Amino acid sequence: MKSPAIIALLTDFGLRDGNVGVMKGVILSITPQARLVDLSHEIEPQDVRQGAIVLGRSAPYFPDGSIFLSVVDPGVGTARRPMAARLGGHTFVGPDNGLATRLIARAERLGQTTSFVHLDRPQFWLPEVTAVFHGRDVFAPVAAHLADGVPLEDLGSPMPDPVRLPLPVPTPLPGGWRGEVEYIDHFGNLRTNLRREEVEEDRAWVVRVGGTEVRGLAHTFGDHSPGELVALFGSTGELILAVVNGSAARHLGAKVGDVIEVIRA
Amino acid sequence: MKSPAIIALLTDFGLRDGNVGVMKGVILSITPQARLVDLSHEIEPQDVRQGAIVLGRSAPYFPDGSIFLSVVDPGVGTARRPMAARLGGHTFVGPDNGLATRLIARAERLGQTTSFVHLDRPQFWLPEVTAVFHGRDVFAPVAAHLADGVPLEDLGSPMPDPVRLPLPVPTPLPGGWRGEVEYIDHFGNLRTNLRREEVEEDRAWVVRVGGTEVRGLAHTFGDHSPGELVALFGSTGELILAVVNGSAARHLGAKVGDVIEVIRA
Amino acid sequence: MKSPAIIALLTDFGLRDGNVGVMKGVILSITPQARLVDLSHEIEPQDVRQGAIVLGRSAPYFPDGSIFLSVVDPGVGTARRPMAARLGGHTFVGPDNGLATRLIARAERLGQTTSFVHLDRPQFWLPEVTAVFHGRDVFAPVAAHLADGVPLEDLGSPMPDPVRLPLPVPTPLPGGWRGEVEYIDHFGNLRTNLRREEVEEDRAWVVRVGGTEVRGLAHTFGDHSPGELVALFGSTGELILAVVNGSAARHLGAKVGDVIEVIRA
Repeated sequence: MKSPAIIALLTDFGLRDGNVGVMKGVILSITPQARLVDLSHEIEPQDVRQGAIVLGRSAPYFPDGSIFLSVVDPGVGTARRPMAARLGGHTFVGPDNGLATRLIARAERLGQTTSFVHLDRPQFWLPEVTAVFHGRDVFAPVAAHLADGVPLEDLGSPMPDPVRLPLPVPTPLPGGWRGEVEYIDHFGNLRTNLRREEVEEDRAWVVRVGGTEVRGLAHTFGDHSPGELVALFGSTGELILAVVNGSAARHLGAKVGDVIEVIRA
Repeated sequence: MKSPAIIALLTDFGLRDGNVGVMKGVILSITPQARLVDLSHEIEPQDVRQGAIVLGRSAPYFPDGSIFLSVVDPGVGTARRPMAARLGGHTFVGPDNGLATRLIARAERLGQTTSFVHLDRPQFWLPEVTAVFHGRDVFAPVAAHLADGVPLEDLGSPMPDPVRLPLPVPTPLPGGWRGEVEYIDHFGNLRTNLRREEVEEDRAWVVRVGGTEVRGLAHTFGDHSPGELVALFGSTGELILAVVNGSAARHLGAKVGDVIEVIRA
Repeated sequence: MKSPAIIALLTDFGLRDGNVGVMKGVILSITPQARLVDLSHEIEPQDVRQGAIVLGRSAPYFPDGSIFLSVVDPGVGTARRPMAARLGGHTFVGPDNGLATRLIARAERLGQTTSFVHLDRPQFWLPEVTAVFHGRDVFAPVAAHLADGVPLEDLGSPMPDPVRLPLPVPTPLPGGWRGEVEYIDHFGNLRTNLRREEVEEDRAWVVRVGGTEVRGLAHTFGDHSPGELVALFGSTGELILAVVNGSAARHLGAKVGDVIEVIRA
């Protein structure tokens, strides 16, 4: 038996109001066999950039055929286009506002086929479409039809120019790199945009954040004492700053966008 | 292949303690094929009214055959009756305390068949029933048996008089309507009990809330500038007050029950 | 048709960062038919003890064949062993750090067969294993292979000595028992380690907590007035302290570990 398609959901809706459940009700009305997986519904309201980062880190662990129904959509009902994108074996469905930036960049980096359509065919939407909830009225039904086997190309007109966010890249320094805090996770770890590719692991580094220095990279959290500030590579190869069994964000008063420098010792 | 029944869950249990998972374990022990969808588990503790509102907005988007396992149940273990209700193509399972008010009203408005049973047949419950967790001991097993094909009528005795909450209705004013804030959502939008049916969209209105006035109705959030207070119709036809990319609740210091007036300009 | 295996997930990851979804993506890549159920992802960061308590209360309500993928793992990447354990009809997968304590104790108490393996066979893991996210790299794939029918014994070497947490037991007092607050739930109820087995229900008791006394045990919440502090048996037979429609934790300023005494009146 062919496995039913996975639809992974990412939104900034929170879990209280029932709107995530409503999108699932819409999907299951169209394609009762879909596998639904929640990626996150706690993206900060309207924070497209944060949504793009979480999507970018998560999607690579999903099997081919997965559909990413992604709704962080401050421009809902305005001129911003609803979009579906084939990115290698994955499909993105959501607003064309940069939310797919990292997924697109990854597919291109891996040399995968990409194609983009402007969702402009109402026959694949709910009969009544509001100006304020395209997640329910447009994106959920489109994701369901994709899961049901409708080809991407049938869902809208080709669209060659999806919006991309200008996500910050590290800049070289004498003897090192300057990056920044890109995301602060549930544990208060600071995830930076510096990656193993830049910061080779076998070198001794000094990591500077605010007025604080960390000397050397740790292997994992538990190698150091509770309360200690450490720098190490996170689970997707990014340099992170962490306080063992604590919160680096609280310890350092750090926030997204703060500068991080790594210098060869 | 017939699709397995959907059981949508709504509770005030939160997601930390494992009790939602426990209900799912009970359901899957009885009917392993059920499709489980979370509607909300963040209803304010004991807030039956809030639960009724979220259920009422969400259920219409679920397919026929869906079962709404709903547990906001401050009277658990007292004389309040456990109930199952057929409401058109949907079934409600939960306490008879008004939680189903909006679902019942909608079914009646649409002229759908309704029938109510008092869940008084322990053979459809867990063998051991506590006085404090009917969600696990009574409602989850009953929902599972319904999903498994047991007819509603087999689960209990007919019960003609389900409890209904007196949810507030708008009152006419000279040149307009007086309503109230019914629900404050995750984004801080104030959802009122005034609806498109009363407030025709093609008219210019002045909306008054506290000492503040909003002139005219917006089409969608993104038509206005971030930080601006706007009035518009929400995704289920209700008049809402919103701050673009912000929180109207915080901006206005508003709370559920606050008066809203709309007057023709 | 044989029902697909249930994998129940418990972590301290929270729901925002996408890491729970990532584990599900990994599982569904290996075994697309698995039934995934969330038990809790709101365990306090690194609080192995709290995770063990929630697991212990929840697992008994899941059917035989269920797999508990449990990741509260401050020692990830250190010498602590990754483990799988057969405990009667259930299987635990997670770190060997005491998280399974209650599941093991229950299986032993019921005389069920138990067996433990040290997960030391990388062919059942993701190809690339980081030092910081064994939930994704080791435990999720192992749970998926178990769900897919791989025997426990194939996944690692026998391991006779799993770590157990010394969870506090009640001590006898003249005319009663001394226990403690073991867990504070979403409603602010204080769940103690005193159980119906010790505190027979048909006796009049005085319950002492801090400087406060409660006389007699209630049957359920709704038998008393809102705001009243009551003692009663919780849904798994534990003595709890609750404020009707309120929070006993807030009312009493109580915390985990606080002493509770019950004395025959």
